[in-house]
Amino acid sequence: MDYEGYLMTHSLLLLSLFISPLLFAADSTVDAGDTRVDSDRLSATMQHMRTFGENAAGGSDRVAYSEHNLAALGYLAHLMAESGLVAKIDVAGNLVGRREGRIDGLAPIVTGSHIDTVPNGGHYDGIVGVMSAVEVARSLREAGVELDHPLEVIVWSNEEGGKNGSRSFTGAVADREMALPSLGAKTIGEGIAFLGGDPQHLAANIRHAGGISGYIELHVEQGAMLDRDGIAIGVVEGIVGIKRWYITIEGFANHAGTTPMDQRQDALYPAALIIAEVRKIITDEPGRQVGTIGRLDVKPGAPNVIPGEVMFSLEIRDLDMNKVNRLFAMISAAATAIAEANETQISFNQYYESPAAPTDKRIMALVKQSADALGLSNIQMPSGAGHDAQSMKGIAPLGMIFVPSRAGISHAPGEFTGPQQITNGANVLLQTVVAMDRLLR
Amino acid sequence: MDYEGYLMTHSLLLLSLFISPLLFAADSTVDAGDTRVDSDRLSATMQHMRTFGENAAGGSDRVAYSEHNLAALGYLAHLMAESGLVAKIDVAGNLVGRREGRIDGLAPIVTGSHIDTVPNGGHYDGIVGVMSAVEVARSLREAGVELDHPLEVIVWSNEEGGKNGSRSFTGAVADREMALPSLGAKTIGEGIAFLGGDPQHLAANIRHAGGISGYIELHVEQGAMLDRDGIAIGVVEGIVGIKRWYITIEGFANHAGTTPMDQRQDALYPAALIIAEVRKIITDEPGRQVGTIGRLDVKPGAPNVIPGEVMFSLEIRDLDMNKVNRLFAMISAAATAIAEANETQISFNQYYESPAAPTDKRIMALVKQSADALGLSNIQMPSGAGHDAQSMKGIAPLGMIFVPSRAGISHAPGEFTGPQQITNGANVLLQTVVAMDRLLR
Repeated sequence: MDYEGYLMTHSLLLLSLFISPLLFAADSTVDAGDTRVDSDRLSATMQHMRTFGENAAGGSDRVAYSEHNLAALGYLAHLMAESGLVAKIDVAGNLVGRREGRIDGLAPIVTGSHIDTVPNGGHYDGIVGVMSAVEVARSLREAGVELDHPLEVIVWSNEEGGKNGSRSFTGAVADREMALPSLGAKTIGEGIAFLGGDPQHLAANIRHAGGISGYIELHVEQGAMLDRDGIAIGVVEGIVGIKRWYITIEGFANHAGTTPMDQRQDALYPAALIIAEVRKIITDEPGRQVGTIGRLDVKPGAPNVIPGEVMFSLEIRDLDMNKVNRLFAMISAAATAIAEANETQISFNQYYESPAAPTDKRIMALVKQSADALGLSNIQMPSGAGHDAQSMKGIAPLGMIFVPSRAGISHAPGEFTGPQQITNGANVLLQTVVAMDRLLR
Repeated sequence: MDYEGYLMTHSLLLLSLFISPLLFAADSTVDAGDTRVDSDRLSATMQHMRTFGENAAGGSDRVAYSEHNLAALGYLAHLMAESGLVAKIDVAGNLVGRREGRIDGLAPIVTGSHIDTVPNGGHYDGIVGVMSAVEVARSLREAGVELDHPLEVIVWSNEEGGKNGSRSFTGAVADREMALPSLGAKTIGEGIAFLGGDPQHLAANIRHAGGISGYIELHVEQGAMLDRDGIAIGVVEGIVGIKRWYITIEGFANHAGTTPMDQRQDALYPAALIIAEVRKIITDEPGRQVGTIGRLDVKPGAPNVIPGEVMFSLEIRDLDMNKVNRLFAMISAAATAIAEANETQISFNQYYESPAAPTDKRIMALVKQSADALGLSNIQMPSGAGHDAQSMKGIAPLGMIFVPSRAGISHAPGEFTGPQQITNGANVLLQTVVAMDRLLR
């Protein structure tokens, strides 16, 4: 997009924000149990959203802070206005659409997700939750369903590149992040400003505990469990915690021809034993914890040189951080013994931690009840991937609803969830929002 | 070196080639048993050779076909002339210094090595054998020792980058190699021409079986066995054969958070089990075979993605190619079973083979006798590294003499062999040449 195009998109976005959504005033209380989303309309908005950044490979290049991202927000602001929501861009570049509730002073019920994608990503991760949330607001209004709480539909900015949008709600975004590169050409700070935010004043977004009555997010599973077992709805138990380490083994690089086997300090051999041991420790214990070694670098890395140094990643995820820590303690003890037995040095460098975010048991029950009432099969499951929902930890009881991802494919053009599966999820979201409105008063 | 410098070096080299070495005619047969090399002179020539390409790190950048390489050949041609050798550059860029023997029609005894280094290499690998060979020729002449056979001292070109110099003697250099890059800026063909060779007519170098009476090469061990045990001389049993494969395991790359442990097709886990199995198979059997996995690449290689593909090298070396093949058969069977048990695909691609080159038992005995007579401790050992000597397989009975490498360090600035250790090797070389002259008549 050239500069004129940029200005035009910005103008359209601003214009959309000021269209009054209050043409249809909520009037009477009706029973929401029979209310359903408009499946065709939801499919149509999903389809239109593809056009913002679809590439020749059929994937999406709508990375955070891109022109495609901005244009898509313009479209969403328009949809929000049509759906009875007053839209604004907040300081973090989130698009927030709000309608007021019947009782003054209640904190809002919030639902949302994201529309930014990884480069050459898919058309469902995040987008399903956003388009469904807007459709839920529209369906509720059209059915004349009023809520006691205000309802906010939020399109979080930059989920894929750091969750800066949702994290701004707890003040967790550090100043230095503004200078970090995003997945596109801009820094995160430049990107927030580009969307109409104010990167210098992110603190204006902070909501303290109780500042949100409840948070509920619909999302594609990004795994294959629902798809494999033909289950319609995942009742999410929480977003797993993640810890990541780099483990380095130092041996001694030497000539592969002239160094006898019994005189080697081969860094790769103990690394191999440790990889096998990690699998054993992770799987010997009951539960759904996962442990992954996804990166491994060998130095110097020549076929005729004994490896002198091996560095590899270790990632452990579980809903229970104590379990993550206990498993790591077992792994580090075993790894240290293996390294020593092979006359190598080992070191552990933890470089990442994302605490577990359990969902609220009451909201889990509402999600299950909603799915059951709709005749939709459902199971409880953890979310192995991270989501904006986890950013709400500490300020709101939170819940998540999963719908199937075909073959578990995600972050790729092949990502797919069928229209009926999305409609199922949107109807569960609608019923859960209504139920939360009653429960969380 | 600029162009004028280049011309000057070339001129000096050509001039040196035409200085007649025949000022001192060999005259009478003397007993060579007491003949010794001049240790101080040998140290001085070793020291001067450093100056051609020594870098700021103290290492050598005298890579094949470089200006440093050419200038060093000019120096050597001068030394050869002083030593009674008629020098010429052959079609492959080898510098060949020859003196005739007492009996017409005998094929020459050849000794030599190389002076090219890897980038930032050391000052001993190859160089010890070349400087000692020239010193042996000079000492024999000064002592008035005549040989029945002609004696050729050869400085092989491009040992480190393909052994093209020595391999030209059996016609093993393929035309396409001329277009391959060398370790420096030139192609191999350009490099050969730069040294004064004729890359279009390498066939002129071919010597058929019996075209060389015997070949003997002195070299640093490049391993730590002699140094560790305080042994002066290694009596080389042969140059080990080498086979190399790339082994690829294909699994399925997937999200490390959303894919349960029992649904993974992690390519790295079976690779780790195979690495452990390789160590076990190689070391369970008696002998000095070695097996090395020096390179391993993980795709996509991100901490939060389950490895979808792992490619790693496997190298096996032994003096007995049958053993190499048998060990590989055991490894490939075990690896295939491991891959299948983990629902991954495995493939093996052999991309390199260097056949084993056993040394001649008679020459081994002469080396040992020479060392014993000089009071030098010695052991039999294989050469785990490749050498120009192996190129002589099939055209000459061959032998090699090793001297210690401090801590086994090689191909690095820290490479070191002491002056007395070099002198020991040179004296063994001298005595072995004289003994070969008697034996191989």
